[in-house]
Amino acid sequence: MSDRLIVVSTDCHAGLPIADYKPYVETRYHEMMDMAVPVQLEMMEKASKSFLIQEINEAWRAPIRQQLTGAWDYPERVRMLAGDGIAAEVMFPDGITENNTPPFGAGLGLSPRDAVPELQWAGAMAHNRWLAEFCANDPARHIGVASIPLLWDVQQAVEAVRWCVDNGLRAVMIPTLWGDQPAYHHSRYNPFWEVCEDLGVIVHFHSGPAPHPEYFGKDWPVEDSSEQMPGAMGVYVSEVMWWLYRPLTFMIWGGVFERYPRLKVVIVEGGTMFMLPPWLRLLDHNYRDVQFSAKLGDFRAHLSMAPSDYYRRNVAIGASCVPRADLDLREAIGPSQIMWGSDYPHPEGTWPNTGEYFKTTFSKFPEADGRRILGDNAVEFYGLDREKLQAVADRIGPDASMFA
Amino acid sequence: MSDRLIVVSTDCHAGLPIADYKPYVETRYHEMMDMAVPVQLEMMEKASKSFLIQEINEAWRAPIRQQLTGAWDYPERVRMLAGDGIAAEVMFPDGITENNTPPFGAGLGLSPRDAVPELQWAGAMAHNRWLAEFCANDPARHIGVASIPLLWDVQQAVEAVRWCVDNGLRAVMIPTLWGDQPAYHHSRYNPFWEVCEDLGVIVHFHSGPAPHPEYFGKDWPVEDSSEQMPGAMGVYVSEVMWWLYRPLTFMIWGGVFERYPRLKVVIVEGGTMFMLPPWLRLLDHNYRDVQFSAKLGDFRAHLSMAPSDYYRRNVAIGASCVPRADLDLREAIGPSQIMWGSDYPHPEGTWPNTGEYFKTTFSKFPEADGRRILGDNAVEFYGLDREKLQAVADRIGPDASMFA
Repeated sequence: MSDRLIVVSTDCHAGLPIADYKPYVETRYHEMMDMAVPVQLEMMEKASKSFLIQEINEAWRAPIRQQLTGAWDYPERVRMLAGDGIAAEVMFPDGITENNTPPFGAGLGLSPRDAVPELQWAGAMAHNRWLAEFCANDPARHIGVASIPLLWDVQQAVEAVRWCVDNGLRAVMIPTLWGDQPAYHHSRYNPFWEVCEDLGVIVHFHSGPAPHPEYFGKDWPVEDSSEQMPGAMGVYVSEVMWWLYRPLTFMIWGGVFERYPRLKVVIVEGGTMFMLPPWLRLLDHNYRDVQFSAKLGDFRAHLSMAPSDYYRRNVAIGASCVPRADLDLREAIGPSQIMWGSDYPHPEGTWPNTGEYFKTTFSKFPEADGRRILGDNAVEFYGLDREKLQAVADRIGPDASMFA
Repeated sequence: MSDRLIVVSTDCHAGLPIADYKPYVETRYHEMMDMAVPVQLEMMEKASKSFLIQEINEAWRAPIRQQLTGAWDYPERVRMLAGDGIAAEVMFPDGITENNTPPFGAGLGLSPRDAVPELQWAGAMAHNRWLAEFCANDPARHIGVASIPLLWDVQQAVEAVRWCVDNGLRAVMIPTLWGDQPAYHHSRYNPFWEVCEDLGVIVHFHSGPAPHPEYFGKDWPVEDSSEQMPGAMGVYVSEVMWWLYRPLTFMIWGGVFERYPRLKVVIVEGGTMFMLPPWLRLLDHNYRDVQFSAKLGDFRAHLSMAPSDYYRRNVAIGASCVPRADLDLREAIGPSQIMWGSDYPHPEGTWPNTGEYFKTTFSKFPEADGRRILGDNAVEFYGLDREKLQAVADRIGPDASMFA
């Protein structure tokens, strides 16, 4: 074991400023894009006032403007990774700070709300085309997560997954919320789970989506409703984690992991993780509780294991900027399931102070566990090339002194 | 302290068979009721097959048919209470087992889904009129919970609360789900919270409502979707508690208890309560977390206390059929907030074996805590007449031998 750690960030973001996606969008959607982009820019501008008030403000951005272009500029990105000591990264859409999100609502939110299915697909595939090119710079280091608006057309999603694999991508994200579409226990999604299992494509859910109009009003983000609906942000931060875990609740009970035992799923940036063990306990309780079973019919007959068994076999956690308090719960969460992430370039991320974060967070932490959480778990889960990454780490990775 | 315990069940159900509500429904809705009741009966019949499969089946009901009429027959009800040793009870709608629910969806579900506001109000007030009469038999023992479809018209709800108080009712239930209507952090509900606080009317949320079509399909309960959507019941039982706590999340962050510090709320039949302490911890974490506050704006400025402080001051838990494992968490849940309930006449309730349940559940349990949970907490929270209830308890109540 080399002294230098292979650090893998399982939560980074990459994407073009929205207008720059045009060359990657099919020509027939260009006119629509010309109309939609200014509207989306205006919405983002308004949302940044009512939602992420200080997050992406000018004062924060000014001194790091150049570095933020690493969201789409490859040499800048390599410098960022070197600065943070990151050997490999998993890349989601939406840099956010520079309005860098795919058009037509195909980015991190990937919400069915107000989406036009054909356009959302067009925006998603535009991002996926760009992402495949970007990752091709060094496939061992960059794991791109393609955007797949699964809800509208499962067969189209299956074909998109095949396209991804043909183009070097083997990770996808699907909507965390399904709106009025069938939820993920529905058998209509079977062909999608099947192709992901077959081709070794890992399915991701990323934190963020939630029913914002319920919190902030129907006219959000166009109108500020904070006087009429006080505390909306408190509700949002208290619920967002639940919406993130929710797809797993449906997939586990729906028997998805029973039918596709090699399917892998990651839930990313779940915030503080202390809700995870009680959530698992609740699922297991409902699985084992005989009274429910007798009263409500045998809803577990199709499951050969308890919910937490599927969780431990099929699921990993993208634990962005994980605080020490959560690391201390690692036995309950699953010590081989926690995978660190820097969340570059989001302002809540550890970037550009990752080295400092390592020292304060991992001080007097068991080195073996630390190595797993910071990289080895991800190397194994994503099937990365350890040899190549060790060579990178030997050049830019942190050493084990953080554990002292 | 008398040896006999004052037992209060904070979760009982009462209501007429649906067709028998007719004399309590305003005449102008009779024609509509004649059309709606057969449809609702058919829906309930179908739901009983796909949802509560064995719960309300003939085999279970046959030997206790007479006792089940205690849901609306007063002498039978008094016998039931005597058999269970219950001095006083809190009564929600929906006996369920005998199709005894108010018409027009005004019962326990009180869902905005598919509801016609004017009719739902008509059904609710019909139930409330009957309930006021029923409770008048012995107001010290029967606390009726009126059905208030708050979402449609807040002023109408305010007037209904005044009507309740004028007619001896001082407890109300409001919808647990709000569908497309504004959630409970919205300032439009202020007049309702205000009148409840002013008149000492306690607001209730009862477990059960959840987005069933998401679990069971859009055509539920008309069509059985269990093949297409396996595990739906597992999802339901894993989420129903979250939907029950959810109104409190909105009310707490919305500052409802800050503005109306004497407002009292009960959440009823939350199932196993081990999710409650982590839920409170999450709210407090979001309240105290400085990073969130700086990044997302100060969403706590209007709150003078942490979320769990409001919970402890303003909220109580109707802990129906509470198992010993949950009682052992009483310090975290709030020992003065747990109020037992029998859930008569629902099949998951302790009735008609409440005496047996007491012995197995409270064996070697501290008597002082047991007395609070089984009755004294409710006497205090609802402001009941201890002297009158002790007289009843001296006649029918259990003695302290259950704690041996």
